[in-house]
Amino acid sequence: MSDMKSGTLFGVGLGPGDPELMTLKAARVLSTAPVVAHFRKSGRAGHARTIASAHIRADVIEAAFEYPVTTEIDFREDGYVSAIRAFYEESAASIAAHLQGGRDVALLCEGDPFFYGSFLHMYDRIKTAHPVSVIPGITGMSGCWTAANAPITYGDDVMTVLPGTLDKEALVKHLAQADAAVIMKVGHNIEKIKEALRAASRFDDAIYVERGTMPGEHVARLSELGECAVPYFSIILLPGGRGRRIA
Amino acid sequence: MSDMKSGTLFGVGLGPGDPELMTLKAARVLSTAPVVAHFRKSGRAGHARTIASAHIRADVIEAAFEYPVTTEIDFREDGYVSAIRAFYEESAASIAAHLQGGRDVALLCEGDPFFYGSFLHMYDRIKTAHPVSVIPGITGMSGCWTAANAPITYGDDVMTVLPGTLDKEALVKHLAQADAAVIMKVGHNIEKIKEALRAASRFDDAIYVERGTMPGEHVARLSELGECAVPYFSIILLPGGRGRRIA
Repeated sequence: MSDMKSGTLFGVGLGPGDPELMTLKAARVLSTAPVVAHFRKSGRAGHARTIASAHIRADVIEAAFEYPVTTEIDFREDGYVSAIRAFYEESAASIAAHLQGGRDVALLCEGDPFFYGSFLHMYDRIKTAHPVSVIPGITGMSGCWTAANAPITYGDDVMTVLPGTLDKEALVKHLAQADAAVIMKVGHNIEKIKEALRAASRFDDAIYVERGTMPGEHVARLSELGECAVPYFSIILLPGGRGRRIA
Repeated sequence: MSDMKSGTLFGVGLGPGDPELMTLKAARVLSTAPVVAHFRKSGRAGHARTIASAHIRADVIEAAFEYPVTTEIDFREDGYVSAIRAFYEESAASIAAHLQGGRDVALLCEGDPFFYGSFLHMYDRIKTAHPVSVIPGITGMSGCWTAANAPITYGDDVMTVLPGTLDKEALVKHLAQADAAVIMKVGHNIEKIKEALRAASRFDDAIYVERGTMPGEHVARLSELGECAVPYFSIILLPGGRGRRIA
């Protein structure tokens, strides 16, 4: 293998969900890549794979890596960490085998690969041994504020992105200081997030978005959402406007 | 005009600068729009227009709105506010005339229209009278962290976006609390920003990016940049990594 040119790992940002919100570059790379890899929940088609489907070659080699555990387990638990670390090691080895064989690999990434991407677990393991090229994508949050018709920042607004996994006090502190905010990873954190928004006097402005830019898209004022279970990847938006000086 | 169907204003996000980082949807809308509008500096071709050029119809009606003042004047100055308000009113009236005539208008927007976009000055003036449809784009900051090969957020990182126009104390306060940060609108604010980064003990991690994803792209450690004038739209990145627990 020593005299074979390595393939390149492409981290292909697919955008927020609507397949038409993929970039021209992503579509081009997908249409030529001999190997397409993606992560998915066990037994599912895989969301990233569905977004990309129109552009993937008929003769492609597919590598689907199935998560051994759900993404909703707290990642600080020991059992989760050991299981997922082994999973990422095996997935990276599988990708590296293709690269060593001279085959480019397009790894499908929802949103933007460098913004909270599971791609990073592969990037950090592969970048020192093989060429890596990243294609940015529209973030999920951008898809959500577009779906909500909610301009997120004007002028000199400060915007903060907060994982809903933070404790309530940390959420309140950050919400009190930001003009605009995006809260990701909502899921079972929703009641804590509501309490934090009330404590920061921002509850009435909050917008809930589920499946932004996708079939089943749902946008609502958080105050009108009621007490229901919500998906992990739903997003809460607090639009800015302090910088809206020239009206 | 009362029985004519209004045209739709499309806010077309063009992404960070590389024309191939436009979305499939943006390219489709540009290729069919009868009117293309854009903002530009006086006497320039216009950056947005250059990014979009391959997709615009040969028989298109073009509306180029030339800023009466530079974007680097502090927008809180009275003279700036009155000049630019009149300019935005005239531009919106020009767009509205096409919409009233039944013609769709594609307004070109660098980056993402709802994220610090000059598009918002048109959106707020037109949305109550005419249909508006927004196509999100990859933000300039995403293009910059991709160009810098700098994953910006992992796991449960908090990310804050800060305009470089903030005063030093505000910058320090926000920088001290964020895991990852993006400082926009650098320009003549750069020395103040450097001082704030030093005061927050984050100077050594800062990355400077100019013209990310475009010809003339320049990426450097901020500490190695030296004392030079930099453009207004350059960006400083502080990559996260606190959430990088599963390595």
